[in-house]
Amino acid sequence: MQKIRIAVVGFGNVGHEVLASVLESRDMEVAGIVEVPEKIQKIRRSVRGFPVVSDVEELEEVHVAVLAVASRSVEEIAPQYLEKGINTVDAFDIHGNSILKLKNYLGPIARANNSVAIVSAGWDPGTNSVVRVLMEAIAPRGVTYTNYGPGISLGHTVAVKAIDGVEDAVSITVPKGNGEHKRLVYVKMKENRNFEEVAEIIKRDPYFVRDHTYVFKVDDVEAIVDMGHGVRIERKGVSGKTHNQRMEFIMSVTNPAATAQLMVSAARASMKQKPGSYTLLEIPPIDFLWGDRDANISRLL
Amino acid sequence: MQKIRIAVVGFGNVGHEVLASVLESRDMEVAGIVEVPEKIQKIRRSVRGFPVVSDVEELEEVHVAVLAVASRSVEEIAPQYLEKGINTVDAFDIHGNSILKLKNYLGPIARANNSVAIVSAGWDPGTNSVVRVLMEAIAPRGVTYTNYGPGISLGHTVAVKAIDGVEDAVSITVPKGNGEHKRLVYVKMKENRNFEEVAEIIKRDPYFVRDHTYVFKVDDVEAIVDMGHGVRIERKGVSGKTHNQRMEFIMSVTNPAATAQLMVSAARASMKQKPGSYTLLEIPPIDFLWGDRDANISRLL
Repeated sequence: MQKIRIAVVGFGNVGHEVLASVLESRDMEVAGIVEVPEKIQKIRRSVRGFPVVSDVEELEEVHVAVLAVASRSVEEIAPQYLEKGINTVDAFDIHGNSILKLKNYLGPIARANNSVAIVSAGWDPGTNSVVRVLMEAIAPRGVTYTNYGPGISLGHTVAVKAIDGVEDAVSITVPKGNGEHKRLVYVKMKENRNFEEVAEIIKRDPYFVRDHTYVFKVDDVEAIVDMGHGVRIERKGVSGKTHNQRMEFIMSVTNPAATAQLMVSAARASMKQKPGSYTLLEIPPIDFLWGDRDANISRLL
Repeated sequence: MQKIRIAVVGFGNVGHEVLASVLESRDMEVAGIVEVPEKIQKIRRSVRGFPVVSDVEELEEVHVAVLAVASRSVEEIAPQYLEKGINTVDAFDIHGNSILKLKNYLGPIARANNSVAIVSAGWDPGTNSVVRVLMEAIAPRGVTYTNYGPGISLGHTVAVKAIDGVEDAVSITVPKGNGEHKRLVYVKMKENRNFEEVAEIIKRDPYFVRDHTYVFKVDDVEAIVDMGHGVRIERKGVSGKTHNQRMEFIMSVTNPAATAQLMVSAARASMKQKPGSYTLLEIPPIDFLWGDRDANISRLL
C-alpha cells in the first residue's frame, strides 16, 4: 500500500516531534524536512536519512505538509503547499474567529488545487474542541469550563519575549478554576534594563490584561522550562429536562509531542477528506486513526 | 426555517426522555409517538398535544424516527422507516462486531431509499467511542480502559427481562478498575419458576458471558432502581516517542436522559449526512449541535 508521504515544515520543538510521530506511523513515511535556508546545515548535521531542504519542490512526492510553524505565519505558508496540490495541517492556536477566518481563506485555495487544509489540529483548539462539542451533544444547556495548565503558554511567552528589554522569558498558565487562570511570567532582563517597567508593560498587554499576572525576575529561564501541560474541561448541564449531567475531560501531556502527534493524525485524516479546509470539528473522528476502518469501528464502539 | 420533525418510536424510559429532548430543541418538533397498539390508549391519556399511533403512516411528515426500542429489535424496526425515506437513530448497545453488522445491513436499505441510519447513538457505544478515538489520535500507542458505572445497564436489563420466567429485573454494572466489571443482576421471578435455571441462562448470555455476573433473587425490583450511571475512560500512551501521555474522561449522568439527548442530537446530525448508515465515529462532531455552524466553530474551537 502506498504510504502517506509527509513533509515536516519547520523543525523547532514541535517539528522534531512531528518527525518522531511520522517515524512511528506504519502508514507514513518522511518525504523530508523543510526549513529556512540559514537553519538547513545545522539540521542536516543532526538528522540523517531524510532530505533537508528550503523548498518543498526539492523533495520527491509529498502528500501532506505538516506545518510546525508559528500560528501567525500559517496564513502565508499554507497556500504555498495547497497550490501545489499538497495537503496542509497546522496547529494554529489563536482562539476565536481568527480560526474561521484562516479556514475560510484556505478553503477556496485548497478546492481550486484539489488539496485539503486542516486548521488548528492541536489539542486546544483541536481535540478539546471536539470534547466540548460532545459534552454539548449530551447536555445542550449548561456551562463548560476549560481549565488549562499548569504549563507553558507558547503564545504568551512569545508576546513577552517581544517586549523591549526582555532577553528571555517564559509564561506559565495556572488554572484558578471555572475557566479562570493566573499567569506566572518569568523574565530574564537584558543588562541595565528596568524590570519594574517591563513588568508593568506585561500586565497591561492584551494577552495578560484579563488575567491575574505575576511577573518574576530570574537569571536563567531555561532552568524552569518543563514542557508538561494539561487541561481539565468540565461541564454540568441539562439533557432534555434532566439536570446535573456531569462530564469532565482531564489531560496531562508533554505538550509538543501531543500537538505533533495530533497534527500527524490529522495528516492521515486529510487524505480522506474532499478538497477544502476543515477544523477538527468537521472531520469524522475515525479518519484520524491508522488501520482498517471497519476493524477500528468494531474495536472502539 | 423548516423544523426537523421527529417520531418518537417506543415510549418507555428512554422514549419519554426523547420526547423531553425534542421539546427542548429549538430546531425540532414532535411529529408523534409510535407504540404498539396495546399501549396506545394509556399513552394518549398521559401525553397531550401529539398524535400517538401504532403506524408511522398515520403521522404527518416525519424526517427522523428516534428508535427508543430494545437493541435486538432495531434490525427489524429500522428498515420499516428507512424504506419510507425516514431517517432512523438507534442506541443499539451490543458492543463488538454486531454494531458493524447492523450498520452494514441498514446501509444499503438507507441508500436505496434516500435515508440515513445512525446506529449506536448513545453514550457507550457512542460518544465514549469518539472519546476513545480522540485519545488514540493523541497517543496512538497505549491502552484505554473504559470503566462503567456504578449504574443500571439498560441493554443488560432488557436482555434479562426478555428471559422466560423473569417478571422484572435490573442489571447493575460496577467497575472493578482497568476496564473490568462486575454485573449485579436483581431478578424478580414469575411464580413457580426456577431461579437457578434463569441465573444460568443470564450468565451464558452474550451480554454477560465476559464479565463476573452475580444474580440475586428479589421481591421488589423497583425499590432498587436508580437511573444514575457513569463512566471513567483512562488512557496512558505514547505520542511519537514521548511516553506517559495521560487522558481521562469522566461522566456522571441520569442515563435515559443522556441516551435520549444523544439520540436527538444524532437525529439532527442525520439531516446533514448523505444517504447511508453511520456510527458516531463517522459523523463530523459539529453536526450534532443546534445553531449556526460557523458560530459554533468559533465558539467551541
